[in-house]
Amino acid sequence: MKYNQYAYVQTQYEEQVKELTAINFLPKNFQNWSFSDLLAKLVKMSIAEAKSDEAKEAKLNEFAVSETQTFADFLKQKPEEIGTNQFYNVALQLLGYHVHYDYQLSDPTGFMQKQALPIVQDIDSISKLVTAFYRLLNTRAKNGQLLIDVMAGRGYFTQFWGQNKFMYFNGKSLSVFNTDKVIREVVYVETDLDTDRDGKSDLIQVTIFRPNESNGGLKVPALYTASPYFGGIIENEKRNHNVDENLSDATEWQDPKYEATPTVEANKPGSEDHVATEEAVHKSSYPLNEYLLARGFASVFAGGIGTRGSDGLRITGAPEETESAKEVIEWLHGDRIAYTDRTKKHEIKASWCNGNIGMTGRSYLGTLQIAVATTGVAGLKTVVSEAAISSWYDYYREHGLVIAPEACQGEDLDLLAETCQSNLWDAGSYLKIKPKYDAMQKHLLSREDRTTGQYSDFWEARNYRHNADGIKCSWISVHGLNDWNVKPKNVYKIWQLVKKMPMKHHLFLHQGPHYNMNNFVSIDFTDLMNLWFCHELLGIENNAYKQWSTVMIQDNLHADTWHEEDDWSNEIGQAATYYPTDDGELHKNGNGKEKKSFVDVGGKDFKEAKISESEWQYKFICGDEKWAKRSLRFVTDEFIHPVTIVGRPEVKIRVSGSLPKGQLSVALVELGDRKRLTPTPKFLMRGGQELGYRFGTDTLQEFVPDKLTHAKLITKAHMNLQNYKDMKKPRKIEAGQFVDLDFKLQPTYYQLPIGAKVALIIYSTDEGMTKRPLEEETYTVDLAGTEIKFYQK
Amino acid sequence: MKYNQYAYVQTQYEEQVKELTAINFLPKNFQNWSFSDLLAKLVKMSIAEAKSDEAKEAKLNEFAVSETQTFADFLKQKPEEIGTNQFYNVALQLLGYHVHYDYQLSDPTGFMQKQALPIVQDIDSISKLVTAFYRLLNTRAKNGQLLIDVMAGRGYFTQFWGQNKFMYFNGKSLSVFNTDKVIREVVYVETDLDTDRDGKSDLIQVTIFRPNESNGGLKVPALYTASPYFGGIIENEKRNHNVDENLSDATEWQDPKYEATPTVEANKPGSEDHVATEEAVHKSSYPLNEYLLARGFASVFAGGIGTRGSDGLRITGAPEETESAKEVIEWLHGDRIAYTDRTKKHEIKASWCNGNIGMTGRSYLGTLQIAVATTGVAGLKTVVSEAAISSWYDYYREHGLVIAPEACQGEDLDLLAETCQSNLWDAGSYLKIKPKYDAMQKHLLSREDRTTGQYSDFWEARNYRHNADGIKCSWISVHGLNDWNVKPKNVYKIWQLVKKMPMKHHLFLHQGPHYNMNNFVSIDFTDLMNLWFCHELLGIENNAYKQWSTVMIQDNLHADTWHEEDDWSNEIGQAATYYPTDDGELHKNGNGKEKKSFVDVGGKDFKEAKISESEWQYKFICGDEKWAKRSLRFVTDEFIHPVTIVGRPEVKIRVSGSLPKGQLSVALVELGDRKRLTPTPKFLMRGGQELGYRFGTDTLQEFVPDKLTHAKLITKAHMNLQNYKDMKKPRKIEAGQFVDLDFKLQPTYYQLPIGAKVALIIYSTDEGMTKRPLEEETYTVDLAGTEIKFYQK
Repeated sequence: MKYNQYAYVQTQYEEQVKELTAINFLPKNFQNWSFSDLLAKLVKMSIAEAKSDEAKEAKLNEFAVSETQTFADFLKQKPEEIGTNQFYNVALQLLGYHVHYDYQLSDPTGFMQKQALPIVQDIDSISKLVTAFYRLLNTRAKNGQLLIDVMAGRGYFTQFWGQNKFMYFNGKSLSVFNTDKVIREVVYVETDLDTDRDGKSDLIQVTIFRPNESNGGLKVPALYTASPYFGGIIENEKRNHNVDENLSDATEWQDPKYEATPTVEANKPGSEDHVATEEAVHKSSYPLNEYLLARGFASVFAGGIGTRGSDGLRITGAPEETESAKEVIEWLHGDRIAYTDRTKKHEIKASWCNGNIGMTGRSYLGTLQIAVATTGVAGLKTVVSEAAISSWYDYYREHGLVIAPEACQGEDLDLLAETCQSNLWDAGSYLKIKPKYDAMQKHLLSREDRTTGQYSDFWEARNYRHNADGIKCSWISVHGLNDWNVKPKNVYKIWQLVKKMPMKHHLFLHQGPHYNMNNFVSIDFTDLMNLWFCHELLGIENNAYKQWSTVMIQDNLHADTWHEEDDWSNEIGQAATYYPTDDGELHKNGNGKEKKSFVDVGGKDFKEAKISESEWQYKFICGDEKWAKRSLRFVTDEFIHPVTIVGRPEVKIRVSGSLPKGQLSVALVELGDRKRLTPTPKFLMRGGQELGYRFGTDTLQEFVPDKLTHAKLITKAHMNLQNYKDMKKPRKIEAGQFVDLDFKLQPTYYQLPIGAKVALIIYSTDEGMTKRPLEEETYTVDLAGTEIKFYQK
Repeated sequence: MKYNQYAYVQTQYEEQVKELTAINFLPKNFQNWSFSDLLAKLVKMSIAEAKSDEAKEAKLNEFAVSETQTFADFLKQKPEEIGTNQFYNVALQLLGYHVHYDYQLSDPTGFMQKQALPIVQDIDSISKLVTAFYRLLNTRAKNGQLLIDVMAGRGYFTQFWGQNKFMYFNGKSLSVFNTDKVIREVVYVETDLDTDRDGKSDLIQVTIFRPNESNGGLKVPALYTASPYFGGIIENEKRNHNVDENLSDATEWQDPKYEATPTVEANKPGSEDHVATEEAVHKSSYPLNEYLLARGFASVFAGGIGTRGSDGLRITGAPEETESAKEVIEWLHGDRIAYTDRTKKHEIKASWCNGNIGMTGRSYLGTLQIAVATTGVAGLKTVVSEAAISSWYDYYREHGLVIAPEACQGEDLDLLAETCQSNLWDAGSYLKIKPKYDAMQKHLLSREDRTTGQYSDFWEARNYRHNADGIKCSWISVHGLNDWNVKPKNVYKIWQLVKKMPMKHHLFLHQGPHYNMNNFVSIDFTDLMNLWFCHELLGIENNAYKQWSTVMIQDNLHADTWHEEDDWSNEIGQAATYYPTDDGELHKNGNGKEKKSFVDVGGKDFKEAKISESEWQYKFICGDEKWAKRSLRFVTDEFIHPVTIVGRPEVKIRVSGSLPKGQLSVALVELGDRKRLTPTPKFLMRGGQELGYRFGTDTLQEFVPDKLTHAKLITKAHMNLQNYKDMKKPRKIEAGQFVDLDFKLQPTYYQLPIGAKVALIIYSTDEGMTKRPLEEETYTVDLAGTEIKFYQK
């Protein structure tokens, strides 16, 4: 398990001394100390839980330099140097490792190499000792945090509480803010929206967690998370739409339109600035924000229109939603009015804010970062959007079909809007909103058009990529390469636009599904974000722009390896085209001439089998005959060199259906018996990371080798036969008519190990994603018109 | 889902007024207020998160009294009374329920009845209004907490922080202590033990969490949890002993002896009292303690001998362990010396403690409560032991057999000692302790005697029941009726002794496995404990001794029903004896005359099937032929009246084995297809309970009807054939020799629904608990000498 470290900033000795003395770790007159006394002193300083020198001294007996000598006994000899093994036997214990159980006193550095921990050799002078400790405090402990942050969790920095200023160590903000006194307040921002059409501006409830020091004249940056779930979640899975229904003729499509709701201009900010009178009831939902709050960054949450405490209707994905999320930033930046309560009597300003705002959050919360970033709103300096949707069509639809996010069969935009309409929970709000909400639900249900699945003006208004040229802030995207909820196309397509921006931009692709990555073993993401936000929101020159590669991609074979790339696109590979053969193989020199058929039975077999969608998928890609017979499969030879498939594979398929309608699915699968990584990271030390001093915890995690499996999905895609000419416009087709489909699969970065085979699977019903027709349909594929092209490196 | 409430103390109106004004909820001159103004005021006071009157006023618009009128509009009419439905439409929202989704504005009281929430009718006067609010603040909210505690979680009681005194409401302590400033300190208690035989007293590390107010002259009680896991857990499941081995001839037994380690008398306490110099690194592991810490009760943790930070060796179950746990109480009570650090230079006293100590904790932590209670140590006023072992033989052995706790096959006392020997993790301690620890491991492994499984002096010294007459404190036991880790015999047998004590004693039996019950929907256990500890440790007269029945037993058919009993024993039922018949039935007038055989194959089938132990057990009790063929089964007719089996069923079995050794298992099973309760409670609002103000959370839970199952284990037991004459002494037997076994099953309280059948299953290898022999053995049961007696009501 490698504790890779990307956020350590190379630092000169003089700067090391300066930083170590500034935090009262290194005595100012350290040059006058003997080696032995200074060594004892610095170990004692690292034992943050012992509060007196005597208590620290007593602890030295608990450390050992070798299999036969305690650290206390070693010091009695007044040594003038310390051997590397001797030093790291002590250091590893400070880092939280257990002697004998984690490492052996006979070989600490061998263990450190396995863990990718940095080692300073030849500690034979005062300056070497100082450097060794500087590096040690900036080394990741067993719990994944830097030792300096472990010490923070034990109260080391309470000595600086109340001094009302930021302190930095190795370019990152330190936990020097009084977390006992965090201010948690609620305000109401007046928007220009009137989504509930009552003739009055919708008020948006905003919850702020900020350092108490920001009441004492210190201006702090804000990390804003636009979270539609913040006010609560209306659970409505049971209302998910029926997916066991036949396809419709897509030409019934009417191109439903997006309709804007009215606007009502808000009052302009005045000169009043009252103190908040309402305290937050809800909590921060994201450990990264809590970690940064202890380090001086305010954390701001708002649900937006329709959520509890706010006015209006949830209109998922619509420009109104973007606007309501954006206007919170306008308030934070001083450009919009807010009030202490819903009676709008008293104005309140974000006078504690330094005007620099970053955004954080995952999924819908990441999506709204993309939405807001495209507005170019003043004050927004950077976004760190995780697993975000960049076009709602790419979340709920694909190539003319209704395609569910993973584990969300039958879910759709109307139901997500209901999930977030938590202002229905308060009776006063309920009486007013319910009839309007009911009407909006009807509207969304009809306009989202589950009948045809076609692109339309309704979806066009929900494609943030159209506004990408409005982006003015720096940009970090994080996405799981196995995210089948928000599929990777969402990040890939916005990345192709963002990467051309003049502003700094980064991409992290991990091996998880719909997941955060701030507490992995293999990458110090939290530290990178500390570095990043200090640079972007506090103006610290800390090398953040050069510290790591533009694109970081976690390896799918070895989770502790990250590939450093300049880009993620087809262009980083070389095109290779494979053709199916008549006998079921897949070759670069394929020669398929036959027409091959399979019969799709929709959800019939699947429902009878009473297995889960994920069980179905695994059996299906493995080639389990019961399921595989509903598909065509073409398999390559074993790869004799490792190959990485990058970007978006593209298929051409000539196909006909036995009905005048049809849906085609294509999967690219890696075959081979081996122990692949766990689908989600394994929890390693539950609650073992302290986010501040007595201030919440997080859990270290990482992907680890799992039990043997036979196959893994690389990527897939689905397409409506009626869109063969135009992805945005359906056409009539005849039963038996051959059409040429040409479409791209979800993007990937997938390393095939030596000996793996790749299968191209052509099928129709995808039990977990497509509709599951009640009628059978025979699909016939003309191999002469069928090929798959992908990019490999 | 019923929110039953047992801890509400009936309170006179005058006392209600006094308490409500003391917490600044009711204005002192409330008699001069109009009904309407007072109604508005009291609702506003309940909205703790709004901090100004204006902010509270603004919130009134969010409530409704009916389907057509908001609460704010209702107040505008200056009403002189409020209808029951009107009032509770508002009250339910204050209690955290969501209009429309949880309750309907048209029928709030119908919903309340379903939830078992108290209703005050006819609120038409000031006094009725006051009473309605007193009851409402003492009503359990949706999250399971009293509304007054929900308000505490929103900061209502910060107004009283720093006033350095306890405040009570309805007999329970309020959260008026400054949780931002909790003191978390570490001290070292000097024991009279020398378990590591270094000629010096073993020091025990003690961690204290206490209200800051206890530094300001306020003496507070201590809740002490003796937790061997507090310093960390050495994971060693992989070293579990092999259970796939043949039985040995039990007469090899040598009656291994308990051997005491030396003692070294500790120094006597002096007059010094230094301030602590070491801060706690570990946290409280038990939400009940945290909840009570916010209410003024110090929380004290100590791992005891062998754990991290402490000297010595872990000797699980031994008198030394009891002594090391007890001596912490001696320090808390002022009768023993402790130091600020391990150098023993500076003495530190528990001068903050009022000398009244209670104990809490589950499993091993509950066990040590029993152990310490039997010493009669001064200062210990009460124990609340959950899922505790009362004799270690009953944990690891049964009737002459090695019997594993559930899900712990191959685990044993030596391995548990290793698990807790966390002082090995610190290198200095490791160098000193490791050789002695290795010797102790060898010692424990040989003395625990996994070879024969027989009772011995080694186990005799680990049976706390022998010292039950030393108990001087009041007593609460909590146990899951489905706890197959610490099996119910442990609580049953100590209860038979405790119930005769002059001190107050209580028993709670819930439907869980090895589990806490402090956050169930169906019982307000946390509130009961608040009441209890206020009575026992603070001397408050609050009716705690008469507030609820001596024995509370959760129903196995309806989790929200608790039976109130005076005792738990055979005597609360009437004996009924059932006899197996030759054709596999079980009747009161049975007439079995045949000898029936089955072949036991040990773990052969089981290991081949690669299923879990719990899967095996379910298939086995359901009568799945593959597994059932290794047993004899006798089934009753369907019960036509509901019957509850209480106490300990007893079997007599005349049996022979084909080898000169053998193990027999007996299970009593309820058969019938129905939706039984979930095995563990379902989480209902994760993290929804605030334990104080910004001070940790807990999660409401309850057993709920689960998917349909065919059978459920009522109880079981196991016995060695070689103990047929004497449970404490094995005898030689011959192959084929019939012996009469007479033994008791684990105790139960199991309601059979109408239509259920009961099966008596006789078998040998219990895959999850017994050894799994490699050799086959044929067992022959003589039905004429076989019967089962149980007590029913």
